[in-house]
Amino acid sequence: MKIAEPTVARLVQYHRLLERLYNEGQKVVSSQEMGELLNFKASQVRKDLSYFGEIGKRGVGYHVERLFKHIDEILSPPRQWKMALVGLGHLGTALLGYGAFKNTKFGIQALFDNDQAKVGKAYAGIPCHHIKEAPSVIRDKGIEVIILTVPAEAAQNCIDIVSQSGRIKGVLNFSPVSIVVPDTIRVYSVDISVELEKLLFYLKQNSK
Amino acid sequence: MKIAEPTVARLVQYHRLLERLYNEGQKVVSSQEMGELLNFKASQVRKDLSYFGEIGKRGVGYHVERLFKHIDEILSPPRQWKMALVGLGHLGTALLGYGAFKNTKFGIQALFDNDQAKVGKAYAGIPCHHIKEAPSVIRDKGIEVIILTVPAEAAQNCIDIVSQSGRIKGVLNFSPVSIVVPDTIRVYSVDISVELEKLLFYLKQNSK
Repeated sequence: MKIAEPTVARLVQYHRLLERLYNEGQKVVSSQEMGELLNFKASQVRKDLSYFGEIGKRGVGYHVERLFKHIDEILSPPRQWKMALVGLGHLGTALLGYGAFKNTKFGIQALFDNDQAKVGKAYAGIPCHHIKEAPSVIRDKGIEVIILTVPAEAAQNCIDIVSQSGRIKGVLNFSPVSIVVPDTIRVYSVDISVELEKLLFYLKQNSK
Repeated sequence: MKIAEPTVARLVQYHRLLERLYNEGQKVVSSQEMGELLNFKASQVRKDLSYFGEIGKRGVGYHVERLFKHIDEILSPPRQWKMALVGLGHLGTALLGYGAFKNTKFGIQALFDNDQAKVGKAYAGIPCHHIKEAPSVIRDKGIEVIILTVPAEAAQNCIDIVSQSGRIKGVLNFSPVSIVVPDTIRVYSVDISVELEKLLFYLKQNSK
């Protein structure tokens, strides 16, 4: 079952909302309520959930705990992916301090940088190695996912180095540039300037 | 003409690709070629562009310069929006150094923080004020857009302060939390942990 990107994005949001409602002790939730809290149409919520076999009870809604556990199962990785973060500048440091990476799903095992002042030290308890050592460290630690937070001009070179390990399956690319990878690697780019251009366009649409 | 979010995201990507091709001197481009370079189906490219009245010539393609200028016109803000960045931690500092913000479309006029060590100084040539002064600085400088890069627990308070100005139209929220705003403000959130969960899900789909 291949799920399209916008649906995945909504699933992640249902998941977080349901987790919150569950922790707050709420037993049932309607598609209406979920839609309002997430800014989706109730019909979209019903359509998405019915695709995964979840049909709310008319006039009652969905069972919060069951729905949360179902979506959690769909989204959860089969195991913890071992990750490395490449580039300990402001963005890398910001991500490292970010709540998300403290989640046990994300196991950051190593950091890489080319700054000798950082190499050999630990950040958030994780050791920093020189980028040149990446192929051997990646193999030794079984790392499969790279979070790339280097400047645009360094991105391709860093990817070429980590690819030499032959072990990388995915890259979350925060560098504002396209990178070329072997077919076996899946790249997912978060381009902040694209997000900003989208905001500017919405402001334009709304101010007309 | 209201354009749906996924279409806007693709438009932004067509725009960047066409700009690059134009700068490289390419005269025509096919939907096939654009699709391959951007990882979209050629039929999606044709559908999107025909929606804006652009029909490629069969066996030839689209005129790069004309198509670029057309999409540029659709996306361009009617004028430069004046912006302020709130929160000069690692993420705020990273964004400030980011190429995107050096683009003339994005005019960052002021920075706000609650750290007295930063207040009164300039970063990237932009003055940093105490967050308490935000309502008056926003009014004085005509700021309409906020880029929010504060920790989750500070986000709502910062938004409440800047909203007091009565002048804010849009917020680009990088804090990993939902914020409540008056109806007149459009919020666009970039949640990095959502992006990361999406990547993990794709890895799961692909490794089956």
